[in-house]
Amino acid sequence: MTTPSNKTNSGNFFEDFRIGQVLAHATPRTVTEGDIALYTALYGPRFAVQSSAAFATGLGFEDMPADDLLAFHIVFGKTVPDISLNAVANLGYADGTFGVPVYAGDTITTTSTVIGLKENSNGRTGVVYVRSRGVNQQGEMVVDYVRWVMVNKRDAATPAPAEVVPDLPKTVPVAALKVPAGVSFDSEAYDTVLAGSPHLWDDYTPGEKIDHVDGMTIEEAEHMLATRLYQNTAKVHFNQFEQAKGRFGKRLIYGGHIISLARALSFNGLGNACKLVAINAGSHCNPTFSGDTIHCWTEVLEKAAFPERADVGALRLRTVATKDLPCAGHPYKDAEGKYLPNVVLDFDYWVLMPRR
Amino acid sequence: MTTPSNKTNSGNFFEDFRIGQVLAHATPRTVTEGDIALYTALYGPRFAVQSSAAFATGLGFEDMPADDLLAFHIVFGKTVPDISLNAVANLGYADGTFGVPVYAGDTITTTSTVIGLKENSNGRTGVVYVRSRGVNQQGEMVVDYVRWVMVNKRDAATPAPAEVVPDLPKTVPVAALKVPAGVSFDSEAYDTVLAGSPHLWDDYTPGEKIDHVDGMTIEEAEHMLATRLYQNTAKVHFNQFEQAKGRFGKRLIYGGHIISLARALSFNGLGNACKLVAINAGSHCNPTFSGDTIHCWTEVLEKAAFPERADVGALRLRTVATKDLPCAGHPYKDAEGKYLPNVVLDFDYWVLMPRR
Amino acid sequence: MTTPSNKTNSGNFFEDFRIGQVLAHATPRTVTEGDIALYTALYGPRFAVQSSAAFATGLGFEDMPADDLLAFHIVFGKTVPDISLNAVANLGYADGTFGVPVYAGDTITTTSTVIGLKENSNGRTGVVYVRSRGVNQQGEMVVDYVRWVMVNKRDAATPAPAEVVPDLPKTVPVAALKVPAGVSFDSEAYDTVLAGSPHLWDDYTPGEKIDHVDGMTIEEAEHMLATRLYQNTAKVHFNQFEQAKGRFGKRLIYGGHIISLARALSFNGLGNACKLVAINAGSHCNPTFSGDTIHCWTEVLEKAAFPERADVGALRLRTVATKDLPCAGHPYKDAEGKYLPNVVLDFDYWVLMPRR
Repeated sequence: MTTPSNKTNSGNFFEDFRIGQVLAHATPRTVTEGDIALYTALYGPRFAVQSSAAFATGLGFEDMPADDLLAFHIVFGKTVPDISLNAVANLGYADGTFGVPVYAGDTITTTSTVIGLKENSNGRTGVVYVRSRGVNQQGEMVVDYVRWVMVNKRDAATPAPAEVVPDLPKTVPVAALKVPAGVSFDSEAYDTVLAGSPHLWDDYTPGEKIDHVDGMTIEEAEHMLATRLYQNTAKVHFNQFEQAKGRFGKRLIYGGHIISLARALSFNGLGNACKLVAINAGSHCNPTFSGDTIHCWTEVLEKAAFPERADVGALRLRTVATKDLPCAGHPYKDAEGKYLPNVVLDFDYWVLMPRR
Repeated sequence: MTTPSNKTNSGNFFEDFRIGQVLAHATPRTVTEGDIALYTALYGPRFAVQSSAAFATGLGFEDMPADDLLAFHIVFGKTVPDISLNAVANLGYADGTFGVPVYAGDTITTTSTVIGLKENSNGRTGVVYVRSRGVNQQGEMVVDYVRWVMVNKRDAATPAPAEVVPDLPKTVPVAALKVPAGVSFDSEAYDTVLAGSPHLWDDYTPGEKIDHVDGMTIEEAEHMLATRLYQNTAKVHFNQFEQAKGRFGKRLIYGGHIISLARALSFNGLGNACKLVAINAGSHCNPTFSGDTIHCWTEVLEKAAFPERADVGALRLRTVATKDLPCAGHPYKDAEGKYLPNVVLDFDYWVLMPRR
Repeated sequence: MTTPSNKTNSGNFFEDFRIGQVLAHATPRTVTEGDIALYTALYGPRFAVQSSAAFATGLGFEDMPADDLLAFHIVFGKTVPDISLNAVANLGYADGTFGVPVYAGDTITTTSTVIGLKENSNGRTGVVYVRSRGVNQQGEMVVDYVRWVMVNKRDAATPAPAEVVPDLPKTVPVAALKVPAGVSFDSEAYDTVLAGSPHLWDDYTPGEKIDHVDGMTIEEAEHMLATRLYQNTAKVHFNQFEQAKGRFGKRLIYGGHIISLARALSFNGLGNACKLVAINAGSHCNPTFSGDTIHCWTEVLEKAAFPERADVGALRLRTVATKDLPCAGHPYKDAEGKYLPNVVLDFDYWVLMPRR
């Protein structure tokens, strides 16, 4: 005699979200040296701070910090079962800041707060805005960002909630950028030869465009290893049997995988952009699939000095990634302002870079 | 002037095994945080005890334990060069128990004892029953199980040994299940929100069937990375040049890879099944290959309380995995009791689950 | 208003090298347990010293050492952006020695010195000889070797430099081989059962040829994960979009990947060859691609005892790897002394092996 079960998570639908609602996400995740090594194998980053404990502790870091995007992906992954299991599209990011560095041994726990709701005119979907925050075992913030996703309604007949669209900053203000405590980037501590680039904050100019030259082809095994490492459960990345029947016929690659590839490729031209400190905006302009080769280029959007810091400044960058299209010509948008079909990522963020 | 060499291991044939024979397997293996991270990347498990050091130590574990199946695969891998290098088929498992948790830094050493021998009527093969036992550097048992394999004879003319078929329990008795020492699962310690499921031991009913919904497609690189990680040397998993000439034309996937995928997928519906404590039986019903998408479902077979433990109970589960077949209909056997062609795993095991 | 940027590394051309020039390579790299686990997953090595902390410390090692080739690949990877980004071919290795063992936590930093320059008669390329040296955070040498590469000239019109071809030893002399300090391989410490082979130094004979039997097929994801793990940036391994237009139409596999596969496969026949101590010569005879199955065989070239060491000796080995060709017949060169088309590696090296 068998009993039907309803113990699986079917995710939240648009109707399930309420303004002010706090979602405590499963599963806390201890970051280890194993995760850091896998991150290196998956993307090939070469930034010295995240590659060498000797280099990092020489600057005043407690240990070699994990890549900031590894922390971001883990926090993002946690939000999927509660926020985006029934999502149609990941629409955007804003107001993201990185807090204390994540070291091997730290345990990250994530919560999200619903800060906006807007039903679409078709009555079948709505946009949910959440602020997600990952903290370490001491409760210190490691990453905090807003994203908004289009989520299916369970029932089109449910009346629309009151529309709340949060007022989000176009750019994270410089005063909100966090330079890690106790860390010095002055030229005696920060060796540009070991870091692999002679170009420092002083050398970059707003408007400057850098083609990062190299390309990296993505394999199914790679993006699935990455996405499982982040415990991200979004179905579209893993199930070819299901995806074969869908619009693309293929597994979609987690957008964060492209961010990490682009960041690693950007070393060639931005070798001293040693730490991400904020995400201003991000758009996954077109889908990517196994077999696509990712190239990218960066425009320097803005430079900011920190009061009382002569050793380090911030650069606001826009990194644009493409599929199967080298970036010497800085491909971006067409005459109508629409992303070119081979552009897959438009990522606006702040990095720290040592000054002369 | 050259000399022929015969220093390679050609494995044991059926004639080489004797009842009572003890095989000390090479190579001892230190489990590290790197292995644990790779396990996460390969399967995507989300059980909180194995994901968060803070969660695990909060319950009384010394540290974040490795997934029980990681220990199982490592122990299994060690037995391959001595037991199953000349195997035709892995026929079954029984009487498997998990002992002390495995933590990063522990070194596992494996021995097997031959407990049964039965030549097949064709005179060319025989069944070897072994009890394999992995211990840590303190000699404490981490996993102990029986498996039986069909092994080729070196020479069909060798007379058959006396037939010994061990009397194996259909199910590991509840008294033999080991709750980790010093660990409490009471509701003050065990946070079901962080664990990702509100359903506890009390909520499951024998006969209940759970479709775990999600599917995961397997790539060649993934199962080979996994199988090498376990230092499992079975040739059929790695050598496409040879396999291309064989029955399937493809590399076969290590059966344990499917067990781990099914266990990870079963989180969706069994999120608090926080530790495997026994393997009652297991069958790799049909072969799996790269490109197959694995789904699975579970039937609750039995519930057991522990005397003197109000905080935790055991569930006996049957998890059935399929290839390219979603499991809403709980696919299993046909009218004649034969496994359906898409059923690839029938796994009968005990798990621990916190009680209300 | 945009500004063109020239901050990317275009690598050195033949004209940029000077005899005596020292290149300090970015990026220092801390080796962790994560890297060691990935190395195991990528190749499946089973040598007990590198697999078990208990086994290694029982011999007197401080901890479980990383595979010597992991250290080699990391050092090699560092040299790529400065030495071989514009290379046409990696021509050879010589005079390589392994120094102190690398343990998890060690940070490796690499420098190269230009020791030879020879323009080719076509005027468009030249051969650069460099001695590369990786040291740990205490400045102790972990690996030191010479390689020579054919590098493009920036401008064929540049006059040729004075030709300097270094005088390199055909074989690293026995006196230069480093047995790790404080380590004993005597039979009370070194357990051949746990190590997986009964054959010790005394049992091998110069001229002996060992077919390692097993084959391993390579996937794109695997060699790219490996090569990124080593932070090796050579474009030909990663960019299918570009390679599709090239001579082979496919990504080339990093030659060191084949060395590591062959070393892991050689366990079957050389299970007690527990540590590489020197690289005498190496040639990547033919390119390898995803889908190729690697087999290998080894000839014992020479045996050497160490004065004052009765516990351990050295074997000089030639391991030859093939693609899609089993090695029972020891395939090597044709009648004219040319490598057979399926031979992909000819590797001449010294290993340590315990004595009876």
